[in-house]
Formats: sequence, structure tokens, C-alpha cells
Amino acid sequence: MRIAVDAMGGDNAPKAIVEGVMLAKKDFPDIEFLLYGKENEIREYVTDETNITIIHTDEKITSDDEPVKAIRRKKEASMVLAAQAVKAGEADAIFSAGNTGALLAAGLFIVGRIKNVERPGLMSTLPVIGQKNGGFDMLDLGANADNKPEHLVQYAVLGSFYANRVRGINKPRVGLLNNGTEETKGSELTKKTFELLSENKTINFIGNVEARDLLNGPADVVVTDGFTGNAVLKSIEGTALNMMSLLKTSILDEGIKGKMGAMLLKNALRGMKSEMDYSKHGGAVLFGLKAPVVKTHGATGPDAVRYTIRQIRTMLITDVVSQLVEYYEGK
Amino acid sequence: MRIAVDAMGGDNAPKAIVEGVMLAKKDFPDIEFLLYGKENEIREYVTDETNITIIHTDEKITSDDEPVKAIRRKKEASMVLAAQAVKAGEADAIFSAGNTGALLAAGLFIVGRIKNVERPGLMSTLPVIGQKNGGFDMLDLGANADNKPEHLVQYAVLGSFYANRVRGINKPRVGLLNNGTEETKGSELTKKTFELLSENKTINFIGNVEARDLLNGPADVVVTDGFTGNAVLKSIEGTALNMMSLLKTSILDEGIKGKMGAMLLKNALRGMKSEMDYSKHGGAVLFGLKAPVVKTHGATGPDAVRYTIRQIRTMLITDVVSQLVEYYEGK
Repeated sequence: MRIAVDAMGGDNAPKAIVEGVMLAKKDFPDIEFLLYGKENEIREYVTDETNITIIHTDEKITSDDEPVKAIRRKKEASMVLAAQAVKAGEADAIFSAGNTGALLAAGLFIVGRIKNVERPGLMSTLPVIGQKNGGFDMLDLGANADNKPEHLVQYAVLGSFYANRVRGINKPRVGLLNNGTEETKGSELTKKTFELLSENKTINFIGNVEARDLLNGPADVVVTDGFTGNAVLKSIEGTALNMMSLLKTSILDEGIKGKMGAMLLKNALRGMKSEMDYSKHGGAVLFGLKAPVVKTHGATGPDAVRYTIRQIRTMLITDVVSQLVEYYEGK
Repeated sequence: MRIAVDAMGGDNAPKAIVEGVMLAKKDFPDIEFLLYGKENEIREYVTDETNITIIHTDEKITSDDEPVKAIRRKKEASMVLAAQAVKAGEADAIFSAGNTGALLAAGLFIVGRIKNVERPGLMSTLPVIGQKNGGFDMLDLGANADNKPEHLVQYAVLGSFYANRVRGINKPRVGLLNNGTEETKGSELTKKTFELLSENKTINFIGNVEARDLLNGPADVVVTDGFTGNAVLKSIEGTALNMMSLLKTSILDEGIKGKMGAMLLKNALRGMKSEMDYSKHGGAVLFGLKAPVVKTHGATGPDAVRYTIRQIRTMLITDVVSQLVEYYEGK
């Protein structure tokens, strides 16, 4: 299998990206990597050239670029070339830690939607607290700002395929994010979606779930519109970050006593941080496209890159995208 | 001033409610309390009868009651009688820790909206981390499931009045919760709202704010639709609760080392918890009604009741509701 890597995307590119690729290469000798970007900068971090092809380009998309414009005008950008490679069949999937909007645009306009999937959604596996390696798949996390009930039903199907094929969950439980668990609760959008999900025989719909309970894992797949999904994801991340830094400050404020306490709790604090860190599940997939298009945080380090490569590999091995194509085009 | 208290609402009622009233009574001898509920149960916790009137009723609304039905059918419920007292001018405000939906219904149907305020919103002062007593006012937190741009503009005005009059903030900065800070970002709702807020001369609109940054205090007032507001509030609360319990488990897992560490960090952990606890700012106000209608968490203890009474008193002293009436009816 061949993965096209946008080596220039992200705050720590190309260093973190190429170092992550090197780690993944050791784990998975069955992957060929196509690295797009500045050859001399990339080569600096290539410690072993087997299964590595560097495709040089000087152009790249920055985090400040306006996504759609950037994709259209910067035709030689590393991200664009990587997407073109997938389109041309030269690569099976694309990885980037760059401008999220631009990657969404490259996914939609270059790689292309699966026929009959109206609005691909951005999906991540988020952590379930208290379950080692537990997680739930949530989408749309912000690929769309406005969604219709029919889109959310597609997210339920997409998420179920992913949870089942890629994460090995039997009959994944699908929950609808709502402002109450009762059937009658919700906005116009969620009420109509509830009806449609209840009628859908493809999925295992278990009803409404509330934002307060998400991290306790009430469902394996949680569907919501892209605006709410984005707000919820960012609220969770913002709160977690703030609490970690609040904990740090509170400990520092205690002086020597704090230092000693922190030393004794080092493992506990590390374990806590690791449980909240969901990068082990991989990156965010723009799901509903003809090939895996996967994004990790811009501030990502080599380990997150490695986990995301592992995730892409599992998507390719399980052939989840072809199965979706069959499901949606076979209809 | 007279505050009508639903003494039977909440998980720990009437104990926590009446104990909280007793605490508030010591702080503020200028408040008369009308306590609605079972007289013998309430009297058990009344340690001093000055400024206390008990209005006996056997009926109460439970957390399982369907809100609108309950308000209409349980005409003798403690919450309904308290709202009726406000309507009749026998009390200036209502406090409850009971069924949120029922209190919203009682507020809308019994106390009534300020003329020209279309959709009163649920507003809380949420914590700003790293600022002792810092906070921002956010609404709508879920009084409505669907909102129009015009409603969000009203929330901006309502929130600005509150932040200015009740919290003493000069020219409160108003932010629109959005899925990006750029002007062009957003859903149909937020794009249209952005336009309207930019044109509004009454408020100090500073642009979009993202959910990730909320707890860092990018604005004094944050407006959003009730569905998103509810999801964001619950995400923040759920994440904070999960992290506190994760921290606890991680510490316990470390055995004796964990115990010693936790002992050394006792003050730090307590300070952290207290900084996240926003009950010191009071409860959630259903804002846009003809009188203060204020709710605290069902699981509330006496201190949160006390803080909410303080908040109601400040609302009454600053006369913020009359000023809103003037603003909206004077138009």
C-alpha cells in the first residue's frame, strides 16, 4: 500500500512528520511512503530510504491560507500534489498535519466524494475515560457548518462502518447528540434525525446521548451536525487543557510541598494525561471520500504521526472505503 | 425586597434550600423570604424566623414531570405558587433548584416575558480560569432548541446589561460563539448574527470566539443558540467532572505513594476544584422575563443557594430588569 504524505503541513513540519514516518516504517514494512515537499529539508530526517520516495516541491499551503483559494491556486503545494497522487491512483491514501480547511477542500475537490454521500464528515475517535484504549467515533466535527437530517443519517452509517471494520466493534451503538435523552427532546434538526435514525435498519440506533456523558462512552458512534460537533470537540479539548494547566499552576503555587507531591504523583498525572490523549487512535478522517484523507493536529509530534499512519493502514487493510462505495453505489 | 423560594425543588430539598436561605439571611437582613412547600419539613431547618414566611403546600413538581404539563396541572405546586407570587407582585423574584424545564415554563407562562423580548435565554456566569472570581456570561444555555439571528442579538443586549449592571463591567465585550474566529466563518445562523451584531450600536461586539478558548475569558458575554449553548456547557461540565474523577482514580491506583502525594497537594487540588466551581457567581437566570427567575443545580448544597440569593439580591438592587423593560418597551 502507498500513502501520500504532505511532509510540509503542520507547525513542526517536516521534522515531526518525517520522524513519525520513520517510526511507522519500522512498525509496518508493507507501507510505501510518498513524501511531498522540500527534498533537502525532508532528507535531513530520512534515516532509512527503503520504501521512501521523495517528490520535491517548493510550494506549500500555510495555516493562514484561505482553504479553497489555496487549493485552486497553489497547484504545486505539497498537500495538493499528495491529493493528486491519490486521485491518479498513485497512492491509496493521504496524510497531512496542515491547514484543516485546505485538506477538507483537497479531499472534496481532488480526491472526491463517494457517489451518494452528500456531505462527507470529519470524524475522530475520542477517548472514553476509565477504559484503557476505549473510544467513540464522533462526526461531523466541523467539515460542514450546516447539516440536514439526511446528512446525520449518513454519518451514522459512515461511523458504523468505521467502528465495525476499523475498530472491530460488533453492531456499534449509534447515539444522536441531543439536549436531553428523552425521545421528544431536541431542535428541529435532531427531532427529524431521531425519526430517520429510528427507521434505519442498517444501523444500531440507541437514541439520544448528552454532551455531558460523551467521555463515559454511552455510544460507539455519536452523530451531530458539524457546527455543534466542532463546538463540543473544542469545549472538551479546551476544558481538558485548561484543567491540566490549572493543576500545574496550583501545584507550583504550593512551592516545595507542591513539588514533592507532584513527584509522588508523577505516574498518576502521566496516566491521567495519557488517558485523555486520543492521538493513539489516530487522526481525524474526512470520511465519505473515495480514499482515506486523514489529518492530525498541527502541533503534532512524531508519535501522533505514527499512530495516524497505523490508522490509515488499518483503513486500507480492512478496505472500509471500498465497502462504503459498494454500500452507497450499490443502492 | 422579597424573594419567593421553591423550597421543595432539587435533590436535597428542602434541607439544602432552607439551610442556604438561613445562611443568606445572615448576610442580607434586607431580604424577606417566602418559602413555598411542606411547612413541617421546612420548619425543621428554620433556625431563625425573622424575615421568613412559610406558605404551606403539599404539591410539588418532580424532576420526572413533563415541564409544561406540570405547570398547568399542578396548580398548587411550590414552584407554581412561588411564580404566582411574583406575578401578583407579592414577591420580586423566584428561586428554585427544581425541574429546569418546569421553571422555564413557569417563567414564560406565569411571570411572563418583557415586551419585545422574543425568546428569553438561560444565562450563567461561567468561570475564567486563572482569574480569581473571573467569569463570563453565556446565553442561551438551553431555554430554546432553535434560535434565529434576532434572538442572538437580544442575548447580546441582555447579557451586556447583566454584565454591566450586575457584575459591574464597563462596556462588556460581547463575543459570538463560532467555529472559527475569522469574520467569514460560521453557519447560516452565525454569519447572519455576525452581521447584525456588527451593526448594533448598543453593544460592544468584539467578533467571534471559539469554544476552545471560552474558559480563558476572550469575552465578558458570549452569545449562542440554545442547542449549541447547552451542548457546550454540558461538554465543559462533563469534561471537568471526568477529569476530576480520573485524577482521583489515578491517585488511588498509586497506593500509599498516591495517598502521600495527594496529602501534600491537598490545597492545590482544592484550589483547582474551587476555581472550576462557578456556583459562587450564582445560578442560571432565565433572562428576558419581567422578574428574576433563577435556578441552581438540583444537586446543590446550602452554599450554592446562598450565592444564588446574593446574585438575585444584586439583580434587584441594581434594578437590571426594570432597565431592560425600559430599553425594550421604550423602543
